[in-house]
Amino acid sequence: MSISKNQLKLITSLSQKKYRQKHKLFIGEGVKVIGELLDSSFTLETLFCTDEYDVDVDEANIIRVSETELQKISNLKTPNQVLGLFQIPDAKHFQDSGLIVALDAINDPGNLGTIIRLCDWFGVTQLICSKNTVDCYNAKVVQASMGSLTRISIHYLDVAEYLSSTKLPTFIADMDGENVYKTKLPKNGILIMGNEANGVSDEIKKIVTHKISIPRFGETQETESLNVATATAILLSEFKRNVY
Amino acid sequence: MSISKNQLKLITSLSQKKYRQKHKLFIGEGVKVIGELLDSSFTLETLFCTDEYDVDVDEANIIRVSETELQKISNLKTPNQVLGLFQIPDAKHFQDSGLIVALDAINDPGNLGTIIRLCDWFGVTQLICSKNTVDCYNAKVVQASMGSLTRISIHYLDVAEYLSSTKLPTFIADMDGENVYKTKLPKNGILIMGNEANGVSDEIKKIVTHKISIPRFGETQETESLNVATATAILLSEFKRNVY
Repeated sequence: MSISKNQLKLITSLSQKKYRQKHKLFIGEGVKVIGELLDSSFTLETLFCTDEYDVDVDEANIIRVSETELQKISNLKTPNQVLGLFQIPDAKHFQDSGLIVALDAINDPGNLGTIIRLCDWFGVTQLICSKNTVDCYNAKVVQASMGSLTRISIHYLDVAEYLSSTKLPTFIADMDGENVYKTKLPKNGILIMGNEANGVSDEIKKIVTHKISIPRFGETQETESLNVATATAILLSEFKRNVY
Repeated sequence: MSISKNQLKLITSLSQKKYRQKHKLFIGEGVKVIGELLDSSFTLETLFCTDEYDVDVDEANIIRVSETELQKISNLKTPNQVLGLFQIPDAKHFQDSGLIVALDAINDPGNLGTIIRLCDWFGVTQLICSKNTVDCYNAKVVQASMGSLTRISIHYLDVAEYLSSTKLPTFIADMDGENVYKTKLPKNGILIMGNEANGVSDEIKKIVTHKISIPRFGETQETESLNVATATAILLSEFKRNVY
């Protein structure tokens, strides 16, 4: 068996968010990521894999392909045995409690994937994304999140509206904020991280209850701001280090 | 004026480390990165820029090019007005003191660039790289480090040999190590971060004096390990948070 024209068309279309939403499908690739997706609550639609790939899945869901065919449908430089289509699950019920990360207009798929991994590591089970944040089912996000995507509940919503209604304390990173190393952070709250170039929007800045800063230790004041994913790592570590 | 065949050949050759070393030149791109490189101690060889680019540099070092020509020599998806050739400086004198980061076989240019930015942020002025770590003058590293490259002194050497000779305490991240949140970290020491896939080599593991771990808070034990750049962020933050 090999890939039909319709399947090829479908797979290609899934590089666009509107077709992912229309078909309620997304793509994962490679032995490791597919392994994690198969082990998760996600529902498999179809696996396209080379003969080399060994997996315990109903044959009805498997289409064996040649290396050349896999190369044709893969988004990876070096395709790795398997590409899978999975169903995008319905949004889980959102709970306004615990430690939550909220993202405002994150553009880079690699950054979103890294932040999903960080949430998973630090036990943050709910991630909020503004509607203009990159789609978490974008192929690059799926690859960068390395399976953590299967364990985090992600909600796309109007962040400013949500922050206006929540009872949780809300935190943004701001150079004028309180030194995070000297701040007593609560167990529950919302950490809001902003766009790579522009930071958090003015609308959100007006709503938040707390501003915290990561002190800069370099001698010159020229140091670039931290990358949003590394700043998220440091701040989540601060939220959790005292809870432990 | 425009780009000569020899210049084109030179620029293309600089994508390879051996030619960067032969010519002692590297490439930076874009208004922001070039601005930081020009403000630094690095010596400019030649700027290739469009008419749009406004800069206070000796005309002898400037070659005006068309958008099309810039596109041809650029490594960026969206070239941004200017590409510059700069001289690779001679290695600075290394001092076996302070807080030092040492990298063992880091492959990804984006990770090295992010770690250089982190060193700059946290006031770590010396970075050691194993000889099989990606070259810091690789174009992608130069872009990812966003000018921090100009402020960090980077030394490629035999890391295991150096660690055997240093008097500083040496630290690796290891899941069996002491909880970093409960460890009193010294002001001076060497933090060693390992390869993306394999971690720190066995040879180095045998030499180090301290093993520290970042606790995992996620409920499942399936969480992927942290990306090396985010782990470096968290650990440097821990080294510095008490010094502040």
